[in-house]
Amino acid sequence: MAEVHATRRERLRERCAATGVAAALVTRPANVRYLTGAAPPGAALLVGPGAEDVLVHLRPPPDDGEGGPDDLRSVVLPSPEGDAAVAAADLARERQADSLAVEEHHLTVTRHRAVSSVTEGLPLTDLGAAVEQLRLIKDEHEIAALRIAAEIADTALGELLESILVGRTERHLALELERRLVDHGADGPAFRTSVGTGPHSGTARHVPTDRRVEEGDFLTVRLGACYRGYRCEVGRTFVIGTAPAAWQIELYELVFDAQRAGRERLAPGVACRDVDRATRQPLTAAGHTEGLAPWTGHGVGLEIDEDPQLSPAAMGKLDACVPVTVEPGVHLPGRGGVRIDDTLVVRPTADGGPELLTITTKELLAL
Amino acid sequence: MAEVHATRRERLRERCAATGVAAALVTRPANVRYLTGAAPPGAALLVGPGAEDVLVHLRPPPDDGEGGPDDLRSVVLPSPEGDAAVAAADLARERQADSLAVEEHHLTVTRHRAVSSVTEGLPLTDLGAAVEQLRLIKDEHEIAALRIAAEIADTALGELLESILVGRTERHLALELERRLVDHGADGPAFRTSVGTGPHSGTARHVPTDRRVEEGDFLTVRLGACYRGYRCEVGRTFVIGTAPAAWQIELYELVFDAQRAGRERLAPGVACRDVDRATRQPLTAAGHTEGLAPWTGHGVGLEIDEDPQLSPAAMGKLDACVPVTVEPGVHLPGRGGVRIDDTLVVRPTADGGPELLTITTKELLAL
Repeated sequence: MAEVHATRRERLRERCAATGVAAALVTRPANVRYLTGAAPPGAALLVGPGAEDVLVHLRPPPDDGEGGPDDLRSVVLPSPEGDAAVAAADLARERQADSLAVEEHHLTVTRHRAVSSVTEGLPLTDLGAAVEQLRLIKDEHEIAALRIAAEIADTALGELLESILVGRTERHLALELERRLVDHGADGPAFRTSVGTGPHSGTARHVPTDRRVEEGDFLTVRLGACYRGYRCEVGRTFVIGTAPAAWQIELYELVFDAQRAGRERLAPGVACRDVDRATRQPLTAAGHTEGLAPWTGHGVGLEIDEDPQLSPAAMGKLDACVPVTVEPGVHLPGRGGVRIDDTLVVRPTADGGPELLTITTKELLAL
Repeated sequence: MAEVHATRRERLRERCAATGVAAALVTRPANVRYLTGAAPPGAALLVGPGAEDVLVHLRPPPDDGEGGPDDLRSVVLPSPEGDAAVAAADLARERQADSLAVEEHHLTVTRHRAVSSVTEGLPLTDLGAAVEQLRLIKDEHEIAALRIAAEIADTALGELLESILVGRTERHLALELERRLVDHGADGPAFRTSVGTGPHSGTARHVPTDRRVEEGDFLTVRLGACYRGYRCEVGRTFVIGTAPAAWQIELYELVFDAQRAGRERLAPGVACRDVDRATRQPLTAAGHTEGLAPWTGHGVGLEIDEDPQLSPAAMGKLDACVPVTVEPGVHLPGRGGVRIDDTLVVRPTADGGPELLTITTKELLAL
């Protein structure tokens, strides 16, 4: 794996060279992890000048059995109250870099000032989202991790569906799901598990409450596993009781059709906004214009919400090997609603089209 | 409660007025929550100019039954992809503030630039840690919330101690503790629960692994509850089996004495570094100089790690009604160690001295 990270840093180095930047200071944790395989709290990575990179730690790497990044030089700050970014910038100056690009979208104004204060004549520029752009297209190791993350989430969700749900609270169901994720080998939940019953169903980020599952409810569940740092998500809506009401079947079919339309639109070269439009259009055509989320999907990887965004204003096109969610939902205030959420990897039609990672059934189950 | 928040904003307004600042833009989530009672993701609070404050939301407040901040004007951005800080700054300009202080330790360089771009002639200054300073001394409502948080953590820990521990993994014990915290009414864990067995015991922030509890192990547990936003922590070390070894008893007594010395030093007017020294001195005198954490305690509140720091370099003195942890630990590489961690509120001697919130016994229990 060490070679993978060295190759990624080499790509960043080339990118910097192309814009005349001698060295890059990477501080955003997911970016540090992508480029080194580790993300100790507060660490900073100096890429360049020249070929030797340095990871500055606040504390000696823990003896956690996972091993550290062994292919690059590691420096531990003398005081853990220091700032690794400042120390890394100081190294860049010592090594006579003639420019240093920093992540202005991650460094606070205060930290940026502290970095400037040690770099003296060395001009600071903006690295922008250079590392995030490298992270967009995943390699097969990354996709393998996402596939396992999705399998864990599917398994946890499947087990929950076999248990008695009526009478249990949203908070307990969410906690049980998170415990099952870890039981099945997840590092932890990929994000805070959302369980919404009755009037809470169908919303994107409902925070579980003490409301109990009742007969006749819609139940919306959204969860994800984090596996070796990679995060997926799956969301499903169920009906509690023997027979769904007519409005429930109708709403479910509408969201199901919207989600399928979005999934089917995924292909290399397709504009992100076109995927959003395909997902969104069935919902707006049925009159659900209010309260729709501003996106109908997004990239996943080392973070649960990364580029690309699938939204009306999104720029850019999809590429092969980009994992995204497709997750339309409709929420009727006071009544509840439906959300269906999958993680898929964009693949060319010749390779069989989009690869569905979250394979829990999307039939409307009455539990 | 609305009145409490209005009073807090009034104090911030006075503080700004004293330094010639007309309006303040607050973006750090815990600070927004302190001043309004709510912290919707991405929200920004404009305090001033004048008496009317505005909370800018990215999305309409969720219908979560908790109610929103009802004593101040609320504005929802037209697009949730916007930046509430930029919108709030634009409002400050419209309302003809002649200066605007922002949280430079929270705003990234990129967001700060976006804010500058709408404020035109309006000079931006640094609000610094003005709100954090207001948060230092807690009122009785805040201390009551911390007291409940501590009670929940004590209860969860007490229940765990009644169960069979040998053979269970660190990860399962940590998850069970987190489930119990929620069972007993916590919003959630105050931080990631740490369970360390055998050679992992005694460290500050051990991430639970699949190691199982064995006879003869030290077992270190560190957990906390979050209740109405307020976070406490408690940490204990136990011995597994019928009789602790001599080295275990000796090490335990050493850390126990250090922790007691720190607790007994807590009083209004005492320098933070003196509390650290009282806690640290017994450990260094016994030769444990390597690997000691850089602090032996810290403030708690809306964040689990806030001012004051109890460390050798800390400036400032304690005040009454400041909740802090006292948490020395010694870790012997390969063997394990002991940590003991309490949350207490600084009180004058006339009021009975420091108020211990986490009351789980600190006797060395053999489980």
